[in-house]
Amino acid sequence: MTKLISDTICAVATPTGGALGVVRTSGPKAIELTNLIFSRDISQAAAGTLHHGLVRDAEGEMVDEVIVSVFRAPHSYTGEDSTEISCHGSPYILRRVTELLVAQGARLAGPGEFTQRAFLNGKMDLSQAEAVADLIAADTQAAHRMAVSQLRGSFSRMLASLRDQLLQLTSLLELELDFSDQDVEFADRSKLTSLCSEAEATIERLVNSFSSGNALKRGVPVAIVGAPNVGKSTLLNALLCDERAIVSPEQGTTRDTVEEVAVLGGIAFRFIDTAGLRHTNEPVEQMGIERARRAAAAARIVLMMSEPGVPEPELQLSPEQTLIHIVNKTPQFQALTGVGLDELRRQLISCIPLPAEGDTVVTNLRHYEALTLALADLRRVSHSLSQGIPSDLVALDLRQCLHHLAEITGSEINSDEVLGTIFSHFCIGK
Amino acid sequence: MTKLISDTICAVATPTGGALGVVRTSGPKAIELTNLIFSRDISQAAAGTLHHGLVRDAEGEMVDEVIVSVFRAPHSYTGEDSTEISCHGSPYILRRVTELLVAQGARLAGPGEFTQRAFLNGKMDLSQAEAVADLIAADTQAAHRMAVSQLRGSFSRMLASLRDQLLQLTSLLELELDFSDQDVEFADRSKLTSLCSEAEATIERLVNSFSSGNALKRGVPVAIVGAPNVGKSTLLNALLCDERAIVSPEQGTTRDTVEEVAVLGGIAFRFIDTAGLRHTNEPVEQMGIERARRAAAAARIVLMMSEPGVPEPELQLSPEQTLIHIVNKTPQFQALTGVGLDELRRQLISCIPLPAEGDTVVTNLRHYEALTLALADLRRVSHSLSQGIPSDLVALDLRQCLHHLAEITGSEINSDEVLGTIFSHFCIGK
Repeated sequence: MTKLISDTICAVATPTGGALGVVRTSGPKAIELTNLIFSRDISQAAAGTLHHGLVRDAEGEMVDEVIVSVFRAPHSYTGEDSTEISCHGSPYILRRVTELLVAQGARLAGPGEFTQRAFLNGKMDLSQAEAVADLIAADTQAAHRMAVSQLRGSFSRMLASLRDQLLQLTSLLELELDFSDQDVEFADRSKLTSLCSEAEATIERLVNSFSSGNALKRGVPVAIVGAPNVGKSTLLNALLCDERAIVSPEQGTTRDTVEEVAVLGGIAFRFIDTAGLRHTNEPVEQMGIERARRAAAAARIVLMMSEPGVPEPELQLSPEQTLIHIVNKTPQFQALTGVGLDELRRQLISCIPLPAEGDTVVTNLRHYEALTLALADLRRVSHSLSQGIPSDLVALDLRQCLHHLAEITGSEINSDEVLGTIFSHFCIGK
Repeated sequence: MTKLISDTICAVATPTGGALGVVRTSGPKAIELTNLIFSRDISQAAAGTLHHGLVRDAEGEMVDEVIVSVFRAPHSYTGEDSTEISCHGSPYILRRVTELLVAQGARLAGPGEFTQRAFLNGKMDLSQAEAVADLIAADTQAAHRMAVSQLRGSFSRMLASLRDQLLQLTSLLELELDFSDQDVEFADRSKLTSLCSEAEATIERLVNSFSSGNALKRGVPVAIVGAPNVGKSTLLNALLCDERAIVSPEQGTTRDTVEEVAVLGGIAFRFIDTAGLRHTNEPVEQMGIERARRAAAAARIVLMMSEPGVPEPELQLSPEQTLIHIVNKTPQFQALTGVGLDELRRQLISCIPLPAEGDTVVTNLRHYEALTLALADLRRVSHSLSQGIPSDLVALDLRQCLHHLAEITGSEINSDEVLGTIFSHFCIGK
């Protein structure tokens, strides 16, 4: 995909209030416009060079003493001519520098617009562009590693190899079409079926990785459930207090479930303390219990807590959920004194294997949805093949499958609206 | 002043949470240590060049894709070998990059330590170094212009010329000493006296500039006072609501005076709404009135509000304060409808002349105190000269005066403690 980009954009790329602040400019006139507000002539500056000088306003008054970095197309983040003005980090200066660039003809960039240009100029595919936003947001080793892997193209390469397989399938189908009047159809179908199941298995694996990928990215939800007064809140406090790496205490969306985040082994766990489960006719308590059940149903891991003499309440869990039984107030486990906690932490970490470097894990809802559609297409292909449906009808589903995969890397997205939605979640200046 | 700096420091120089983040390293091993965590060899990189590559951890796992800027002594901010690693702005990445540098032997920089090194390496004097912190904090045109002027050395040059005058005075005094047995003393004193008054006038002007300089830097305090119910709060709201550039609403330190900041003509004004002044025996109201009087006494400008038939309360002001009378609810002025407000804004702006570019205005309390001491020294010199006190005694005060001036630029500060105090107010990474 190529798109004519004629304007030059600029934005502050760092939060204000630090020692340094960076104003980014990219586009055909990036160097020319920067040159107009800079005390030194950088119009002929070599790519990859730094220039110390002053930014001056139209009246010649100094705005700041800065370092300008010069990048030339295609060797820049966006693939265009670009500059970065490294200023003192005052809000006033960053605003003034941006205003001066705009006064010279630059346009204020929207969220993610630099990365969008990198995509449009072929510097990265769409899934890599999306990984940039994930990378910036990553606050644990796990989330960081998945974003790095996606940014470095491991997901893109897997999709490319899937595409190759499916194209091979397509050409075999076309071959079948060509010879369809010679009745060779059934001989070729076993080869087709095997290629199809192979691709199906790969996509299925990617689809299934989303559950843990998403949990790793957003924090693994762990519900602490059990009868009243068995020590659930004590356990929550114990898990958080001993753990230095508390990311943020966060009030749940429902008022009565308390949610707190702790990082264990590079993974963020969102621990959700819930109301004690028991039979009651008291309406307010019933509401709390309903919330507890919902929290348990939405959790990736359920810590079912009991104590000797207090039986575990009944709870329906899905096969994807991990249930960990804890019998509190025993020689093996005491939430109050911390006995057994280290073992519990190890168990929690082992439930969620940290992806190895380069492992492909789907973390993005858009990708997950496209893969789910692609999988459904491929299953229809598979079914049609087994039913002896004519090749031309099978090819329709196959093309649909290829289309859904192409949406992920953006090689078949032509709608500005879709791109706009994707990049609107980025921060300004990236 | 020179000081042996043997270690290499590093720090995150931008707030986290933006598109980009910058990790700064400076010291003899800055390039060597950066090289150890970077995928490309920059050990021989030319000064002022940019290098695209990966930061990797000790296990070889990629932490981020970055741009490294290389600076070589003495052509850097600190005057030392330095690098800046421009990363994605995630807190996780910035922490990891800094950790990796520390693991290789860098030390985490304290607040202002890069600027302190710039000072110690003779890249700027102390008053310029202090201007760096002011520049970063500046959020109005006035504060920014004063910081720029000081950073560019206009204050330093004025101090240097003062020093020249005083050294001339010293040598004339020494001449007098040499010839003291020849009774030429009184003939030379007129020249001495004139040199002395000239320097005195310059320092006096600097000392006097502090009041408006400090107000421009911190916001000009404007107290709105008057009898109850004449429209003071309406005026405050009118001044703020019509004004888009509200910097921050801020609750006063005393509970009952409301303080809000508005920027008019590039100057921050801190408007303080106060309790109505009247005679009362009600204790709580008395306390409010006491606070109103204190606010008026501390204000640079007092807006005294009245209305027809309601006389102005009595108020003692000092000669440095500007009193503006406003008769509300008249055809000329109505706070509620906004009549007369533009004229009032113009009047406020004209009370506080914005310093011209290059104007020397003292904004720093430390400088003000040193100048005040220097002025007292010089007045003693002046007095001694007029009283015919022997030159050797006069010279003592003169040396003391020179010493106090030298403290401002740091040419006579040898105490780490004093430097530590000055730089502790800086942000990390600068």
